[in-house]
Amino acid sequence: MKRKVTLKQIAKELDVSISTVSKSLKNSPEISEDTRLKVQAFAKLYNYKPNNIALSLKNKKTKTIGIIIPEIVHHFFATVISGIEQVANEQGYNVIVCLSDESFDKEVINLEMLANGSTDGFIMSLSKETQQKKDFHHLQEVINQGMPIVMFDRVANEILADKVIIDDLLAAYQAVNFLIEEGRKKIALITTVDYVSVGKLRTEGYIKALKDHNLPIDENIILKIEDIDNCSDVIEKLIAEQKIDSVFAVNELFAVVAIKEALKKGIKIPEELSVIAFTDGIISKFSTPTITTVSQNGVKMGRKAAEMLIERLEAEDEEEERYRTEVIETNLISRESTQT
Amino acid sequence: MKRKVTLKQIAKELDVSISTVSKSLKNSPEISEDTRLKVQAFAKLYNYKPNNIALSLKNKKTKTIGIIIPEIVHHFFATVISGIEQVANEQGYNVIVCLSDESFDKEVINLEMLANGSTDGFIMSLSKETQQKKDFHHLQEVINQGMPIVMFDRVANEILADKVIIDDLLAAYQAVNFLIEEGRKKIALITTVDYVSVGKLRTEGYIKALKDHNLPIDENIILKIEDIDNCSDVIEKLIAEQKIDSVFAVNELFAVVAIKEALKKGIKIPEELSVIAFTDGIISKFSTPTITTVSQNGVKMGRKAAEMLIERLEAEDEEEERYRTEVIETNLISRESTQT
Repeated sequence: MKRKVTLKQIAKELDVSISTVSKSLKNSPEISEDTRLKVQAFAKLYNYKPNNIALSLKNKKTKTIGIIIPEIVHHFFATVISGIEQVANEQGYNVIVCLSDESFDKEVINLEMLANGSTDGFIMSLSKETQQKKDFHHLQEVINQGMPIVMFDRVANEILADKVIIDDLLAAYQAVNFLIEEGRKKIALITTVDYVSVGKLRTEGYIKALKDHNLPIDENIILKIEDIDNCSDVIEKLIAEQKIDSVFAVNELFAVVAIKEALKKGIKIPEELSVIAFTDGIISKFSTPTITTVSQNGVKMGRKAAEMLIERLEAEDEEEERYRTEVIETNLISRESTQT
Repeated sequence: MKRKVTLKQIAKELDVSISTVSKSLKNSPEISEDTRLKVQAFAKLYNYKPNNIALSLKNKKTKTIGIIIPEIVHHFFATVISGIEQVANEQGYNVIVCLSDESFDKEVINLEMLANGSTDGFIMSLSKETQQKKDFHHLQEVINQGMPIVMFDRVANEILADKVIIDDLLAAYQAVNFLIEEGRKKIALITTVDYVSVGKLRTEGYIKALKDHNLPIDENIILKIEDIDNCSDVIEKLIAEQKIDSVFAVNELFAVVAIKEALKKGIKIPEELSVIAFTDGIISKFSTPTITTVSQNGVKMGRKAAEMLIERLEAEDEEEERYRTEVIETNLISRESTQT
């Protein structure tokens, strides 16, 4: 059985990047003539079938939306998919999901595969590796060929496209504000090491809230966790050594560990220690006590992304593009781990 | 822009089921000639393109596996996908996921869409509606055209295909046995109403374990929950009115609610009440106390399903087919909600 040769195989064979192959096949002047001819000859020899995206768009609609996300064992992404599904079903679209597993190469391959006539457009959240590499040519290519992409949560400023995000700084500010209004004064922050932009923004929101209320910034109660799987010891140490009266955690895992460690020491929650976590997931709903959280509204995010994509797909005239960035409001879900 | 007409649109236009359209287009004698001709004429008029599955299989391999599952906001299915992804990555396959949302129609549409040249084969768990209707023609069609399917968890005995399941009866038996060996005598069962085969098998396992140890079967402590979203009241009543010393719950939600209600009454866990739940998910790991569970090994199930599918896809000669059913072992994860 003869297999279809892919961009990736050509790139490997000729020892050039996938992006070079892709540009060569489109006769891009960015690539030297020598390379272009070599790639084209190779592609012809192996019967490479290019994606005729523009062509397929003109001829038919698949009525299918492609979703590419970093991972699936993650409540937030699952709720976003639910939201996309709701709108897609209402409007007669199918949905196909592919996972990048946080890998740049898998993201490129999945995008190529789905763009090859399977979908009309994409809803995407970038892989960590793509964010680190800052290589977005695969998205740009798809957009150039007339296929719309809506990015959510992990978006790239470099790419002109519709985007759906939340205001992480504001959300963190409001959560910390809530603790201050409860009368808390020693509010610990439990966060991740901050190469991830989202973690950085949440830390900024925390600091801004303290400053606005003239509360001191105490580095001893700002905990940056390196190793999520082994966070119990450092959190236990924080609770044992610092006289904190509340915790703002950037994810519900840190919050539930803080609660467990506090309960072990006989600290009463919420009377003696108040806890708020970012991201409303399953843990917060079912832990004892239940945890007050900042809800990212994954379903709403998914719904909005699907609406924006379908609107673009069904626009009659292709006027000059104006891309929008929608900011989804977060909301605080008050539960047993806080007093109000 | 002319759009491709879909099975669903034809069905809606002619007010017949998707299954009728699908069968009519294949000239199935199950459908009256009148309907068949009407559907065929309509399909021709709107230029409906049927799937040339057999053709595409002969011409090329996509190196892509299609997964169709009922829902995604469900830890078990997410772990199965992880397992499939692991094996697929190891062997150079891509994975595409579609959701049936527990709907028969969506399952048919997704299968049609993916079979249309996007994938080499399928890994599937049936929607509830498909199980109730017992209409599996869409699977049979895909198999008849030479595309392999591996079914997992919710499988159909009527379909000859490779399957991956767990032994629900045995797993429940072992869980109840564990409680008996702890010295428990009044073991409550919290289960669902049993049109779902899995719930029925788990109940059988519970009864068998009691009988084998000469313990009485007491209908008063077998709770069949109709409405999962409002299970607190009935579970509270069970705990208040019956002198039970342990609970076997068919899902972790029932278990965590039982624990919450018991703690409210000052009942000590596990000293006075021991709790075991089916399905090892996020709730069990993070509730206080953590919950002893029967793990369904979703990752292992996914890995096995992917191995079976890829083996079949890459078999050199198509000899007489022998389908296998693999039973994945469950295991008990002991945590704070039990004594041992």
